[in-house]
Order: sequence, then structure tokens, then C-alpha cells
Amino acid sequence: MAIKVSIVGASGYTGIELLRILNLYKEVELVQIISREFEGKALKEVFPFFISTKFSDIKFDKEPDLDSADIYFLAIPHEPAVELAKKILDKNKKVIDLSAAYRIKNFNAYPEFYGFEHSYKELLDKAVYGLPEIHRDKIKNANLIANPGCYPTATLLALYPALKENIIDSDTIIVNALSGISGAGRGLKQKFHYPEAFSNSFAYNPTKHRHIPEMEDQINQISGKDIKVRFTPHILPVSRGMISTVNFKTNLNKKDLIELYRLEYRYEPFIRFQKTPPEIKYVIGSNYCDIYVDLDERTGYAVVITAIDNLGKGASSQAMQNFNLIVGIEEEKYLKNLSEISIIYP
Amino acid sequence: MAIKVSIVGASGYTGIELLRILNLYKEVELVQIISREFEGKALKEVFPFFISTKFSDIKFDKEPDLDSADIYFLAIPHEPAVELAKKILDKNKKVIDLSAAYRIKNFNAYPEFYGFEHSYKELLDKAVYGLPEIHRDKIKNANLIANPGCYPTATLLALYPALKENIIDSDTIIVNALSGISGAGRGLKQKFHYPEAFSNSFAYNPTKHRHIPEMEDQINQISGKDIKVRFTPHILPVSRGMISTVNFKTNLNKKDLIELYRLEYRYEPFIRFQKTPPEIKYVIGSNYCDIYVDLDERTGYAVVITAIDNLGKGASSQAMQNFNLIVGIEEEKYLKNLSEISIIYP
Amino acid sequence: MAIKVSIVGASGYTGIELLRILNLYKEVELVQIISREFEGKALKEVFPFFISTKFSDIKFDKEPDLDSADIYFLAIPHEPAVELAKKILDKNKKVIDLSAAYRIKNFNAYPEFYGFEHSYKELLDKAVYGLPEIHRDKIKNANLIANPGCYPTATLLALYPALKENIIDSDTIIVNALSGISGAGRGLKQKFHYPEAFSNSFAYNPTKHRHIPEMEDQINQISGKDIKVRFTPHILPVSRGMISTVNFKTNLNKKDLIELYRLEYRYEPFIRFQKTPPEIKYVIGSNYCDIYVDLDERTGYAVVITAIDNLGKGASSQAMQNFNLIVGIEEEKYLKNLSEISIIYP
Amino acid sequence: MAIKVSIVGASGYTGIELLRILNLYKEVELVQIISREFEGKALKEVFPFFISTKFSDIKFDKEPDLDSADIYFLAIPHEPAVELAKKILDKNKKVIDLSAAYRIKNFNAYPEFYGFEHSYKELLDKAVYGLPEIHRDKIKNANLIANPGCYPTATLLALYPALKENIIDSDTIIVNALSGISGAGRGLKQKFHYPEAFSNSFAYNPTKHRHIPEMEDQINQISGKDIKVRFTPHILPVSRGMISTVNFKTNLNKKDLIELYRLEYRYEPFIRFQKTPPEIKYVIGSNYCDIYVDLDERTGYAVVITAIDNLGKGASSQAMQNFNLIVGIEEEKYLKNLSEISIIYP
Repeated sequence: MAIKVSIVGASGYTGIELLRILNLYKEVELVQIISREFEGKALKEVFPFFISTKFSDIKFDKEPDLDSADIYFLAIPHEPAVELAKKILDKNKKVIDLSAAYRIKNFNAYPEFYGFEHSYKELLDKAVYGLPEIHRDKIKNANLIANPGCYPTATLLALYPALKENIIDSDTIIVNALSGISGAGRGLKQKFHYPEAFSNSFAYNPTKHRHIPEMEDQINQISGKDIKVRFTPHILPVSRGMISTVNFKTNLNKKDLIELYRLEYRYEPFIRFQKTPPEIKYVIGSNYCDIYVDLDERTGYAVVITAIDNLGKGASSQAMQNFNLIVGIEEEKYLKNLSEISIIYP
Repeated sequence: MAIKVSIVGASGYTGIELLRILNLYKEVELVQIISREFEGKALKEVFPFFISTKFSDIKFDKEPDLDSADIYFLAIPHEPAVELAKKILDKNKKVIDLSAAYRIKNFNAYPEFYGFEHSYKELLDKAVYGLPEIHRDKIKNANLIANPGCYPTATLLALYPALKENIIDSDTIIVNALSGISGAGRGLKQKFHYPEAFSNSFAYNPTKHRHIPEMEDQINQISGKDIKVRFTPHILPVSRGMISTVNFKTNLNKKDLIELYRLEYRYEPFIRFQKTPPEIKYVIGSNYCDIYVDLDERTGYAVVITAIDNLGKGASSQAMQNFNLIVGIEEEKYLKNLSEISIIYP
Repeated sequence: MAIKVSIVGASGYTGIELLRILNLYKEVELVQIISREFEGKALKEVFPFFISTKFSDIKFDKEPDLDSADIYFLAIPHEPAVELAKKILDKNKKVIDLSAAYRIKNFNAYPEFYGFEHSYKELLDKAVYGLPEIHRDKIKNANLIANPGCYPTATLLALYPALKENIIDSDTIIVNALSGISGAGRGLKQKFHYPEAFSNSFAYNPTKHRHIPEMEDQINQISGKDIKVRFTPHILPVSRGMISTVNFKTNLNKKDLIELYRLEYRYEPFIRFQKTPPEIKYVIGSNYCDIYVDLDERTGYAVVITAIDNLGKGASSQAMQNFNLIVGIEEEKYLKNLSEISIIYP
Repeated sequence: MAIKVSIVGASGYTGIELLRILNLYKEVELVQIISREFEGKALKEVFPFFISTKFSDIKFDKEPDLDSADIYFLAIPHEPAVELAKKILDKNKKVIDLSAAYRIKNFNAYPEFYGFEHSYKELLDKAVYGLPEIHRDKIKNANLIANPGCYPTATLLALYPALKENIIDSDTIIVNALSGISGAGRGLKQKFHYPEAFSNSFAYNPTKHRHIPEMEDQINQISGKDIKVRFTPHILPVSRGMISTVNFKTNLNKKDLIELYRLEYRYEPFIRFQKTPPEIKYVIGSNYCDIYVDLDERTGYAVVITAIDNLGKGASSQAMQNFNLIVGIEEEKYLKNLSEISIIYP
């Protein structure tokens, strides 16, 4: 019997990306797509490139029906997601939440970084952070998945083996990240009006980005230590793609460092080791995280660089990887195929 | 039993695009990939993004083995393709030639437009022009497919219904086309060095492009008339994507014009009618040709605009569409799936 | 004594471009910059790249003072510009209007193409169309300059010598144009949100663009004939730059055609003949119109291709060229210098 | 009397940029432009955008005449520049060398980072590192200027005030930089073929970039300490523009940190403090270095971010700033004007 799925916030970039992937799933029945902006319109009317797919004629609904689906993907703003996830869970349904509503155990971060008080602190404890490479087993039994942010995904995958093995000097984690502009969402902003973002690049939120408490929360869970991260994100004038360049001091030599990473990730289906720093172009559309591990022997710093598609492994295809784990489909199913097909050269 | 396939010229853009698509084919065994430049190297070494696919470890050979495969894709320069196709056909094998070697029945065009005398004029007669929307039945029984050029594909699909129904005033076909830079191939050129092509656009070969005799050869076959085309190609500063904006005078009214096109293409799996002029972004990676048909009532000119991926419907996925027809696989197989997955938003 | 100048609509792309150029003018005193959006803010606050210029601390005013300046640049929407120009002229001041408010003598075009009835038809007669290559003498004595649109500038400069010498077959003018996205203005639109316009291109308004009546009005003035133009504009994924590719049938041979253009434009300071089709990159920031003239002998069509900066010769630097003519400064002054400096390679 | 100037290596990106700027100089006579590739051709033939300038008809020579000029700009590869600079100095002429031939006092770096032994170590001592903000007085009297690299310019300007005041914890300088592709020069490379670099970004030389010894040499001169820099450069898919994001631990508070920078640079004509992280778009074509200074109070790291045009302040306009100092022209002359005009919005 088909798994019934609903997408709340289906007209944003992550919502549409979910539709691209769900199009492949034979086990899934799409019962609702929700978008207040486009209520009553067919998918193909708003997004004509869907005209040739099976979802072509589905119409956007205004409000989610909390009885019709088994699993709800939330691709809506953080604050309403807090409330909606609670309601869906109360109906004994499952939630994969692509917002930050349930990502941070440290609930004090919400007022400071997101501007609202979190109403369901007990639910925060039950939510599972949906990074399969770290929390695979918990994800399988979760009812509420907090699907990771894009910067945290790229950065945590670059740090995890080193944190787990405790080889990082505290206070030396310096992260510089680059993101394509789709990461800022579908909403219009002057800075991202095409003529202005064209041929441009800049750092932003250089000392206080919303993804910092999310990263540190995980770092501290993994390492058992209170480690702070120095993080500067930058805008890349492309649509999709993200790089995280992670530096940290370590006593390991180069060979052992690389070996540590290879060992930890040896069975991971979506992590690809590269011999040169990864290129964003060759992860776009995929669920891959390409990784490069090196040691700067002159300074004693490890340099680990990851590349993901911010809307793929950084959002929607990772959500589907979590979906596969929750519903008991083989983890790679559809996503391996999707990843191989989507990467185009040049 | 598997169909044995060889790609000659596998390291260029169309060759690599064939590999992306062949990766999907369960019926195919890839027996050889040929590239003099990369002889002896594994695919994954040269193109690391293939590291996760089943073709990852295949090594490039220097010369094609003319006995090992059933079907040969030629993705090499025009002049050597003339010779190689002959040799393969003499072995009773089939050829899908992505070069222009066998596209133009009018062999006099070769010295003028391609700089060499064609040695096998009788083979030119037997070659079938691989545009399925026009020559589907002949393609099914062909041994030698001349896979169309990108500009001719986009332009002929914009003209075909009108030519067939004889509604065009001769001498009024004016075509302006835009192409992404991948159309110029993988070879390095100063004009297409990134810093120079960035933020740039220009017309080129404004009165004498190589694709003109190919287009006119087909136009004249379809219409039975000696019609000349005024054609100006332009460079778009993107990697992939092509638009052909075709103007011609006609006596039809708008309603009848649109109806004519819809009727002709009503069963075509890869032609998508759009209500606004098509966007290149939403055909990239696919085998689709998106089309828009309109009449400028003030001037009496029809305006038909098509968009394709120059490496997709304009080259490699069209070659696979021809492959499906030749080997008797369902025409849409894999290609529909490929097209739906590859198109990403935004 | 300084010429007092005011810019109404100073925060849009053409307004800011005027400021970049006016910065050079020693003869000018900038008395006001008007922007409702930024009333009370200093220029450097809103546009930090101005921080190092002499205009850095000027504050935006909400409403224009109709007594303080000698010449007003209007860079506001069409409809309010109709009214404001009238008021300024009534004060015996001069107006250089960058909107379409006074461009079209045929006032019936306004309701059809711009959606409003024109209230001052007698002023339409007095307005001078500010294309110096065509109307230089009239411009010198004008009080109201209708500064041309970008597509009309590029297209009329490609047609003018041929129209003037009456060598064009009527009903054969086919124009295809490409424009950078800054031409759509500073206002936000979904189509021009960076992630969506990135790697994209498409035709728009393929049969009814607002610049058509403006072009035809001039064509008909020059030729004395009622000639219609088939015009299709396309979006280029860059910020600035415009190409107009103009085809028309003619009986002239290639040599005579080129000679005709060279002769007509031989003293023009801002028209540069190029031996290959012009590149947008090498007119950006300048007041140049680069031009290429050719004949397609196979079809009997002339092909004339122009490239301009849509915000330069297509808007603000052309406005300053008109300014120089009006106030009696040498026509090339500052603008030649500006053009040479602004073009950067690569 | 005019200062006679020669450009050796005039057809590369930095050479052409010098020509754009020299075009402004009334005090200069350009006696020779050297390019083996284009010997005998006029500037306008090779670079048609120069057609309207006073240098339009100058022809490229094959070899420099060491007697004809007073000052030679070297824009050639590092190794031949070592030799040529020596010869020119032996003639009692002056050299402004845009290569790395004389930048690093520590001559051992040459074999390791540049692949050749340096033949003139005594000249290395006499060469003055041409970063006016640090070495202005020495530059005025120098005969041999080693014009800084682009990454060192952006990075050293971000570090200088902090190094000078000794407020940096050693071993905590982590630099991440982003560069437009023009920084890789005019020579063709597969990675920078337009279709491949389009929509792409990646780190490169992540632990051993050639600019590291140059930066450390200066850092050690300024601080008197042997400080190593952790440096990762990344490719930005644009033509021009560079960002250097510099992190270091400090005990200063935010207010004092910012004050320190403002005080140090208070009279610098080409350093512009910005209130948000600088955007590359608004330094392109200019000699400005835009700077942003901040403290991440959570981690105790300072974050200083600079933006320059890699071909401007990072190469050719900085060379002209050095030229002004050497010949005794006012330091800002022409360059202030150039900078204000060249920056275009959007």
C-alpha cells in the first residue's frame, strides 16, 4: 500500500525540489501540496516545467489536511512549523521538518537567533536531527525529524570523524563557507535581484549566523565538549551549490587524518572522497557530499573541504534520505539514481 | 542479450553526455570508450564526478575495435567520421554519427562549409537524418544515423509543421538563435576563456554558419522548394541551452497556426507546448524541445520559438532517442525519466 | 556660473548612472536628488559605493523643487512624467525625460502600449526625440528632450542610414534583440530573482513590446513611409548590455551597403565600426554604439548588428549627450573620457 | 617633459589594464608595448575595444628597447622578469615589476614555490615591496618596485594595523580568500573554459599557494615575528574581484579593534571603511580596497574582510599608485578619478 505524503510549503525551492524527487517514488501517493500563494492553481500553471510529469495537474491547497497523509514534509517558516509539527504529531503522524523549528536542543537559542520563544521544549528533546551519517539509527525510529540546515550539513560532515575521535584542539575550528543564492529562498530581496547579485560576492552575518547554534549543538553532542565555532558565510553568484572549508588544529599526521575520515565514512553511500578540493558543479542536483581531507604541515591545521547542493544534501534530498530510513525503504533507493542522473557536465 | 555499444570520442561534451544517459540503460553493455587524449586512464580519473557510477573504472582506449560492438556512437570531428563510419558499416555494424559527416545530402556543401571533399557520396544517400519527429520511420531501419546539429534541431522543429503544410511565404524565413557555450565544444578558445566570455554576448558567423546547408537541405526535402534561410547565431554566456526564434510570413490566422502545430506534434513525447516563450533553464539536461507558437498580427509574421538543451535534444539525448528507435526499445524509455529528473528549479 | 541640475527618480538604475556621470561635470551643480523610497537618507547610506565621491553626503528629497534647478532629469515612471514635465516646462525650465512619456508623436499608442491617455498632446509635438545621430540640431534648441528607449536606440542606429537612403524593402525589417536584466529596472520580480534568472534566457513580449511604437514612429519620420517592424526581445543573463540584430532586404551590394553606413556616421563620436559582430562586454559603462554591417548575399538580406550599454547609450549617458548639446558644452566632453575608462578587459 | 614608459608583456590582463589607466596620463609618453604573441599588430587589431583611444594604432614590438624608456612595467612570467629587471636597472632605469620576481626577501622560497633559483639575491634586498599603505616612503625612492600579488594585497591590508600594534595571537591567523578567474591570467586552461567554470566554485592549492611566502615575508617584517598563515584560496565564477576573509585571535574589544584600524588608515586615499562586509562588485575597475572590521565576541576572534579588484589594487592600478609615488605625481592623481568612474551599478 502506498505511503501517503503531504508537502506543506510546496512552492518554495525546497518544496519544489521534494516534488522533483518524489516524482521517482513508486511507493508514495502525494495527497496534498500546500501553498497559500498559489491556492487553487495547478502545479503546471505555476511551474510550467512540471507539465510533463505525473504531478502536472495537482492543485495547491490552502491548508493542510492533518488526516489525509502518513508523513508530512514541512517546508515553511520556522515559527509556524513549531506549531504545525505539534499538531501533526498529536494525530500520530510523522513529520520531516525542513525548517529549523526542532533542530536545536538548546532552546535558548531560539529567541536569540530566530526571534521567538519555543513553545514545545519537550518535543525538542524527542526530535531527531536528520543527519544520517551521524544519527542513522535514531532516525529510523523517529516521529519527528529535524532536517539539518545546509551550512550545518556541509560543516558537520567535515568535522564529524575528527570530533568523534577527539583529535581537534578546542577553540581552533574556523569555518568559511560559500553558498549559492537559492539558499536564501524564493522570496524577493534587493541584494538578490539579478542585476545586483550578478558578478558579485560578499560575506554576510560575519559573526552571527543562524546556523551557528545548530552546528555547535551537534558539535557538543558529538564531542561532549563546549566548543565554539568561528563561522563566516559568503554569497556565491550561482543558483545552487555550497562549499564548507573547515580548518582546525590537530596533532594527527596527514596519513592518519585521511585514514580516519576514510574509515569513518567507508560505508556511506552519499559521501564521495575526492583527490582535489570538491567542485560545486559536480554535486548540483545530487544527494552527494564530496569531501577532501588534507593537513597543512607548516601550520598544523587540518583542512577539510566539503561540497554539497544546498537544496539537495543540504535540504530536500537529505529529507528523502531520512524518509527512506523512516519508512524502511533501502536508504539509497531512488537517491543514488537521482544523484547520478542530475550531475551534468559541463 | 545486451546490446554492445562503443563511444568513439568519449571525452568531449557530447561523449560524456552519452555516458550520463547510457548509465541508465539496462539493455546495453558498454564495450569501449575511445579518447586519444586520455588513453589508458580510467573515466573516474579524468572526470571525478563519475566516481560513483558503474562506468567509474572503464579505461579510455586509443583506437576503436570495429569488431567488438553492435552500435558505434561517433562523437569525433567531421572529416575522420566520414571514413570511420564507412569502415564500421562495412563490418555490418550500425553507426549513430553525432558529427556532420553524413547530414547533408547536397555533398557540394562539404568543401564550402566544412573544408573537405566528401569521399562517400553513395553513403550520404543511405544515411538517415536522425530527427525522429520528421523521419521516425526511416530511422527505425537505418544503419547510419546522421544525428542532427543543435541549431538545425531547434530550428527545424520550429518550422516543420508549417513547411509540411506549405503555409510559409518563401524568402521570409528569418532565424535568430542563441546558444550556450558548450555548443562550441571542449576545446579551448580565447573567446571562451571564462574571464572573457563572462558578462559577454555577441553574434558570430552572421552570414555563413555551417548549420545553414544542413537546415536548408531538410527544409527543401520537407517543402519540395528551394528555400533559403536567413540565420544569425548568438552566444549566450551560459554552459547549456539554446533558443531558436523563427519568423516567417504566413496567411494563416493565429488560431489556425497554433492548431496546425498542436495537431502535428500531438503524439510527440518530447515536444512540450508552452504558453509563454520557453526558458532554456527548464530544458537543460533533458530531451525536451519546448515550443511557443504565435502570430504577429500587425506584420503578418508567425513567430515560433523553441528551446532545447544543445547537448540534449540538440545532440546526445537525441542520439539515444535514435538508438531506442533503431534497437526497438520503446522510444521514450529512460529518456522521459532522464528529462524529468534532470530539470532542476531554480 | 554652474548649471543647476536636479534628478527626479535618482535611486533607480538610470538615476544612479546619471550620478556616476555627473560626478565628472565641473560645470554642474547638483541641487536635488529625489527618491520617495529613500527620503532623508544620504546617498552613501543607501549606495555605499558612492562613499568616496563628492555626492556622498547629498540627501534624497521627497519632492522636486521646481524652482531650484535649470534642468531636470526625469527618471520616473511614464505616467507621472507626463505631468511633471509639463509643470517644469511651465516654469521655463528644461527637461530631459528618460521615461517614454514624450517619445511617441502618435499619441494613440499611449493607451494601447502604456495603459494611459496622454494629457498633453501639444507638448508631444514640441518634444524632441533625443537621438543625437538623427536629431542633433533640433536637440540643441529643445526644452523637452524625450530620451530614447534602449531597444529603439540600438535598433534605430542600425537602421537609420538605410532608412534615410531608402534602400530597404518595406515589410522586411526583422529585429531580434537581447538585453541584460538591468533593463527591467530596480524593482523586484520573480523572473529576475537571481537563482531563477541564473543560467536562463528567454524571449518575452514576442509580438507586442512597448518599444515598437517608438521605433516605428521614428522609422516613419525618417523614411516617410508606414513601415512595421517585426521585433522580438530576449533576456540575457547579465546585468548590462544590449544587442540588436537587424535584418532587412535590400538591393545594395555589400560594398555599397557598408560604405553607406560609414559615410553617414563618419563624424559620429560615439559610433564605432567593428570588423566582427560587436560584443556587449566592450560597450558596458560607455556611451558607445558598436556597429557591424554585412550583407547575406545568398538571401539578399542586410544584417546590421549594434551593441550598446542599455543604461549608457540606451539611457543615461545618452541623456548626458543630450545635456551637452542643450547647454552648449562640447558634445563629447566627459563622455568620451567616461567611455574609454569604463570599458574593462576582461 | 614627458615620462617615457614601456610595458613589457602588454597583451596579458595586467598589461591591458595598465594601458586602460595610462590612457589617462598626460605626463606619460608610451614608447613601447611588448608582446611576442602579437608582434607587429596594432593594439586595435588585437583588442578592438581600444579602437577609440589614443593608443589605438600603437604596434606590439617583440623585444623591449632598454634605452628608450625611463620606467619599465614588467607584466611577464616570474623567471624572465628576474633577468630583465637586472638588465634595466643596469641601464639606470626604473622597474615596476608586476611578477613575483622580486617580492620575497627570503630567496629560499623561489625554488620551493616558483621552481627556479633566484640569480640576483642582492637585488632582492634593494627591491621595495610596492604596498604604499605599508612602504610609502621607501617606494618614493625605489628603483625597483616589486608590485604585490593580489591575495597578499587584500590580506596584508586586512592584517597590517593589527600586526603593527602587536595584538594578534600567533598561530591563529586563518585566511580564506575568493578570487575571480582573471587572476589566473589570459592563458587558456581546461578548468577555466567557460562551460566548465560556469556555475562552479572550488578551493585550490589548499595548503601550498605561491602567495604564502610573500604574505609571510611581509607579516614577519611588520611584526618582527615568525608567524605562519593558514591560507585557502577559492575560485569565484566571475571575471574580476577578490575577497579576503581574515580571522585572528585578539584580546582587544570590538570598539578598540575598529578604532585601531580607522586610526591607522585615516589618511589612506584608497581604503574605504564599510559598515557591512564589502562587495566585490563595488570595487571592480577601481584602486579601492574596501574593508570591514569586526570582533566575534563569542570566540574572541577578530574578523577583517577586504575586497579589491585583483587586476586593480591587486595589480595594475596599484602599480600606477607606485608609479605616481616614484615619479612625484600626486598619489591619487588619475586613480581617484579612475576609481570613481569605473565602479558601475548594477
